[in-house]
Amino acid sequence: MIRLTLDELHELAVAILRRHGFSEPHVQAVAATVVAGERDGCASHGVWRLLGCIATAQAGKVCRDAEPQVVDQAPGLVRVDAHGGFSQCAFAVGLPLLVDKARQQGIAALAINRCVHFSALWVEIEQITAQGLVALAATPSHAWVAPAGGSRPLFGTNPIAFGWPRGAQAPFVFDFATSAVARGEIQLHEREGKAIPPGWGIDAEGQPSCDPGAVLKGAMLTFGGHKGSALAAMVELLAGPLIGDLTSAESLALDAGARALPYHGELLIALDPARFLGADAAQHMARAETLFAAIVDMGARLPSQRRFAARQRSLAEGVAISESLYADLRTLLE
Amino acid sequence: MIRLTLDELHELAVAILRRHGFSEPHVQAVAATVVAGERDGCASHGVWRLLGCIATAQAGKVCRDAEPQVVDQAPGLVRVDAHGGFSQCAFAVGLPLLVDKARQQGIAALAINRCVHFSALWVEIEQITAQGLVALAATPSHAWVAPAGGSRPLFGTNPIAFGWPRGAQAPFVFDFATSAVARGEIQLHEREGKAIPPGWGIDAEGQPSCDPGAVLKGAMLTFGGHKGSALAAMVELLAGPLIGDLTSAESLALDAGARALPYHGELLIALDPARFLGADAAQHMARAETLFAAIVDMGARLPSQRRFAARQRSLAEGVAISESLYADLRTLLE
Repeated sequence: MIRLTLDELHELAVAILRRHGFSEPHVQAVAATVVAGERDGCASHGVWRLLGCIATAQAGKVCRDAEPQVVDQAPGLVRVDAHGGFSQCAFAVGLPLLVDKARQQGIAALAINRCVHFSALWVEIEQITAQGLVALAATPSHAWVAPAGGSRPLFGTNPIAFGWPRGAQAPFVFDFATSAVARGEIQLHEREGKAIPPGWGIDAEGQPSCDPGAVLKGAMLTFGGHKGSALAAMVELLAGPLIGDLTSAESLALDAGARALPYHGELLIALDPARFLGADAAQHMARAETLFAAIVDMGARLPSQRRFAARQRSLAEGVAISESLYADLRTLLE
Repeated sequence: MIRLTLDELHELAVAILRRHGFSEPHVQAVAATVVAGERDGCASHGVWRLLGCIATAQAGKVCRDAEPQVVDQAPGLVRVDAHGGFSQCAFAVGLPLLVDKARQQGIAALAINRCVHFSALWVEIEQITAQGLVALAATPSHAWVAPAGGSRPLFGTNPIAFGWPRGAQAPFVFDFATSAVARGEIQLHEREGKAIPPGWGIDAEGQPSCDPGAVLKGAMLTFGGHKGSALAAMVELLAGPLIGDLTSAESLALDAGARALPYHGELLIALDPARFLGADAAQHMARAETLFAAIVDMGARLPSQRRFAARQRSLAEGVAISESLYADLRTLLE
């Protein structure tokens, strides 16, 4: 393993992105995201993702110097047209107006359109909770997941994320795929020649299967049966047609076998406790703390608790990445 | 079984509620809800619920003539103080301003406070989709459900509901508890002396149990493991502290063993596709129809499909209720 400080890792990410011709706003937004993933122990959303970013750029599937365009759509709505750039850059440009609107209206939404997406949603959620706002986010992906009772892929892994501000403490945050597991988990089983547990997927004939290869050619399943499937459909609708952007099936069709990162939209909603509660806000936010204490007191974990612990370690000690990944990243500098 | 037309059933519900001293707005709002449940084949939210309404009123746990008070909290926020009346009456009073705000701002929220709650959320969701708006709703209940990894009840059954307008067709609607099953399902198993499947609950020591009696004294579990548990926590926060109202634990503590209906708040969010999409709205709503067609074409069901089929039957043929329930309802007229 190679050990790096977070600053060193950030410099490496910045150098790679600059080397491949990304505009400076893209460089900064994408570097911050992948370093945050590595810092929080989420290797699957860490600097490894730079390999996919560069491959997507080389395939001509992301615009390296896109200038996101902000549209003040309605008193409670911001739209950002990413113009084919990465979602993180569009989010950074749209965030200030979303925050302003949430504070003025009490609730506001940010729709990001025509972006290339690979980020975990918690990165954006935490930028909203840092402003003292409650946040929701959802995005489709590529059509890999069958609806409950269905036989063919239609939904993406369609993550849903939520955040609740806790003042100086780390926020209450969750961010999960509505698929039973991440697609990468099934790919990992395939590479290792291991069977997957029942409930993760079906084969191309729509039959339950524990063969990872058959499921990757068939369809993944949602978590939680028909309830998870209903949520996956909701994500398609809210972060697809409602914002005038692609569903997971349309995004996969557009990809046309290039295996690039998904290209579509994202919806974020921000709610301002101060606007809901006025002078009583502090008192009611304290009641949320009572709820969190009750969860922890019975030995259960808050979502993201492990991630925040990893963050503390990484801030103090830096991170360790494998020699092979480090070598692959260095190659991108050549 | 006793067969009644929907008009006859509605008259019976109205007569019972009037006989027990509810104000006319309460009579109409509650009667419409329980008749809608019966009409849609949801016996658990049908006229049977009138027995609980009257018991709650007789226990002094609902205010029969509460006058809900509408507060224009912010450009995107409506609050309705139910003043201890039933949620349906408060919703009816707040709905027009929620719709106005969603159309003006693009997104708006309705917080209902201090209401007694027993309704399925789809009844309200469908009144919002009938206005061409997308809708979300959530409410806590009583603390009967343990968080993932926990040993004691903390969350309510905490339903989440979503609706998408489909013009002249029935909307896309789901409404489900974030608990693995409804509490009534476990009570039914207890009455019939049957074991419950693994995954529904834990006993008072926090151990998994298939004994319905032990689980009713212990805690129910959420659907979908830690993901369902995260959603249940989100419902507590959004429809509790965020709107200045009780969590499920606080609501159960307030009940103090009276076994009355839960007393707390509800959050609804409405989004206007016309504001998001402008002149392109019809084109993008048609893409949602393509998604629904793909679900149905592979033999999967849309959520609520069975409910809408029951509605068609009931509108044509009326509904049948058991003689014993009919007798119990007639007794309430004495």
